[in-house]
Amino acid sequence: MIYLDYNATTPIEEEVLDAMLPFFCERYGNPSSAHLAGRQARAAIDAAREDVALLIGAMPDEIIFTASGTEASNLAIRGVVAADPERRHVITSAFEHPATAEACAALERQGVRVTRVPVASDGCVRPEEVGRALSAAPALVSVMHANGEIGTIQPIATIARMAKEHAGIVHTDAAQTVGKVRVNVNALGVDLLTIAGHKLYAPKGVGALYVRRGTRLTSVLAGAGHERGLRPGTENVAGIVGLGKACEIADRQLGADAVVMRSLTEYLLAQLRARVKGLVLHGDGSERLPNTLFLTFPGVNGARLLETVPQVAASTGSACHSGSDAPSASLLALGVPPEQAIGPVRLSVGRNTTMRDIEEAAVALSYAWKRLRDVSETPMLSRPVC
Amino acid sequence: MIYLDYNATTPIEEEVLDAMLPFFCERYGNPSSAHLAGRQARAAIDAAREDVALLIGAMPDEIIFTASGTEASNLAIRGVVAADPERRHVITSAFEHPATAEACAALERQGVRVTRVPVASDGCVRPEEVGRALSAAPALVSVMHANGEIGTIQPIATIARMAKEHAGIVHTDAAQTVGKVRVNVNALGVDLLTIAGHKLYAPKGVGALYVRRGTRLTSVLAGAGHERGLRPGTENVAGIVGLGKACEIADRQLGADAVVMRSLTEYLLAQLRARVKGLVLHGDGSERLPNTLFLTFPGVNGARLLETVPQVAASTGSACHSGSDAPSASLLALGVPPEQAIGPVRLSVGRNTTMRDIEEAAVALSYAWKRLRDVSETPMLSRPVC
Repeated sequence: MIYLDYNATTPIEEEVLDAMLPFFCERYGNPSSAHLAGRQARAAIDAAREDVALLIGAMPDEIIFTASGTEASNLAIRGVVAADPERRHVITSAFEHPATAEACAALERQGVRVTRVPVASDGCVRPEEVGRALSAAPALVSVMHANGEIGTIQPIATIARMAKEHAGIVHTDAAQTVGKVRVNVNALGVDLLTIAGHKLYAPKGVGALYVRRGTRLTSVLAGAGHERGLRPGTENVAGIVGLGKACEIADRQLGADAVVMRSLTEYLLAQLRARVKGLVLHGDGSERLPNTLFLTFPGVNGARLLETVPQVAASTGSACHSGSDAPSASLLALGVPPEQAIGPVRLSVGRNTTMRDIEEAAVALSYAWKRLRDVSETPMLSRPVC
Repeated sequence: MIYLDYNATTPIEEEVLDAMLPFFCERYGNPSSAHLAGRQARAAIDAAREDVALLIGAMPDEIIFTASGTEASNLAIRGVVAADPERRHVITSAFEHPATAEACAALERQGVRVTRVPVASDGCVRPEEVGRALSAAPALVSVMHANGEIGTIQPIATIARMAKEHAGIVHTDAAQTVGKVRVNVNALGVDLLTIAGHKLYAPKGVGALYVRRGTRLTSVLAGAGHERGLRPGTENVAGIVGLGKACEIADRQLGADAVVMRSLTEYLLAQLRARVKGLVLHGDGSERLPNTLFLTFPGVNGARLLETVPQVAASTGSACHSGSDAPSASLLALGVPPEQAIGPVRLSVGRNTTMRDIEEAAVALSYAWKRLRDVSETPMLSRPVC
């Protein structure tokens, strides 16, 4: 199998697993326990908190561990609005991950005003659109750092600067950027930032929310006082340790990783372009994730294409939309017509991707494309996978 | 270290870890992905769902995986009320875990009526008290299956029967019973039941909620459509696999485990009673968990006692209250005076506890008690640990 779906999830780095292992059968204490076993677990969480903070330029006490990026974004968006009855306006983009989009929709049903700024055809939100949406009433601005399908990186620093001039609080879902490009909460100027462990070689089931000191936030779940009262529930100690280790690894090899991934995707793109006439790279020309290609194979539905190449594990979009037959919401947001928006294929590389993987995938995909293009195709809906 | 804090958390069973390991570095697919890697992960979750269901007499589609018992209880309590605008009354007990107690308090702040039925001095809720609280208006009844501190098992089947006569929906937090005693959702007659992985030799960071077919429930978190739309966020595949395996193990050795644990606690109690004059076993005479002793060492504060015996890892109560200096809420609920309620020690045994552990712990605790009793003690507050 050639795995080209690193944006859906990554394998766990062996070094990460090694760090986690002692916390299953040996150091199994409950971090809330006062005895030695508990204190060992607590110390491990504290160390992980430092590693996560370091990667994004935060302070350890600004990191809240959650069970997923989804939970982190829920805490950020709903927690800020719940904490401040005056903050009744959320500004977001038209192509957010469901965690953000649905959290905003839930607030909207409760009477909170939600403005969804459009996305330009290059796959980027225009900061001036956010600026237009800002008003005297204090808002929460939530725009993703990079779109996980198209891979386009959003101008968060500019958006945050504009929001700050209007006393805005700024959240960004950085699930797809942390570990792939350098992310610094101060350079971005954000107050809240979502991290998903399983996108950066840590396990599924752990995430984190960066919360800038002084940000008023209310817990979304109710319970005991874990995570400074912001996230109740016994901590996923091993998962948190894994996330810490994954951040430590990312911090030291992020630059080199990005260079390798960039050259792998460029090579893959060149290989495909040489074979697939009319191949469309979405978000071309925009700043993009180094590991992601979102492509339309002309005249062929992406889901159909991938079905005929089972040895290539890739997707037609975000894995979180799997099973639905809807066109790519990201592309629709860009103004791509629905008939094209059901077609794309997302190829995302990672640390274990080899040149040989790239070559084999390019041959297999282009061969399948030619075969499918040659048979008379009846229009069919894709099954996007996230 | 002699670990006598299995109610706070358990080590992961090696067989559980073995089942989990492939899902970190090899079978790392996102269960929402349509390709083989994704389908492998999905199949593993489905298999785990069957194992969890089997242990409690449920159907697989009645199991929703969460990140913790806390999240499961939040989903149950807040999800039922959110799903039915007519259900504006919650009946709960006075000594619930914070996940339940705080979820109820959050609903109360939103205008939902919350009735907290008292607990009798034997550590049990009287069903007739629940009956008195029931009225024509449909209620949600949420009473824990066993109190994690005192260990007393509550008459859930009777409570559920009474609630059903008034169209009530019944939730029970079974975090402390599943894996220790036989739990069957049909015998109990409950509609919702909370499971916490790390209390039954599965990892921290995974829990489950049983949801009886036909129960109207709304997701607490917003996001994509995972877990039948009831719990968004990429699934903790390895953790879920671990919970499944732990349930499979519990199903086959629960009976034998309970017999061993009962004899271990009886031996421990006998050893302590022989050495500690006036030792009080709370909940004595009531049906209790086979592994739990909640004891007051006369004249000595439990936190002080445990501090002087660092080789014995035990607690003064639920680990989730650690760091606070409050008396045991459970004992206060029973009507125990505050000066006694700050004193107790919880000793909870598990699969790895040996007779030798019991003997050494009994000697160490009783010796420490004698020493402390002999020095003039100034009253001090305990630091309960959950």
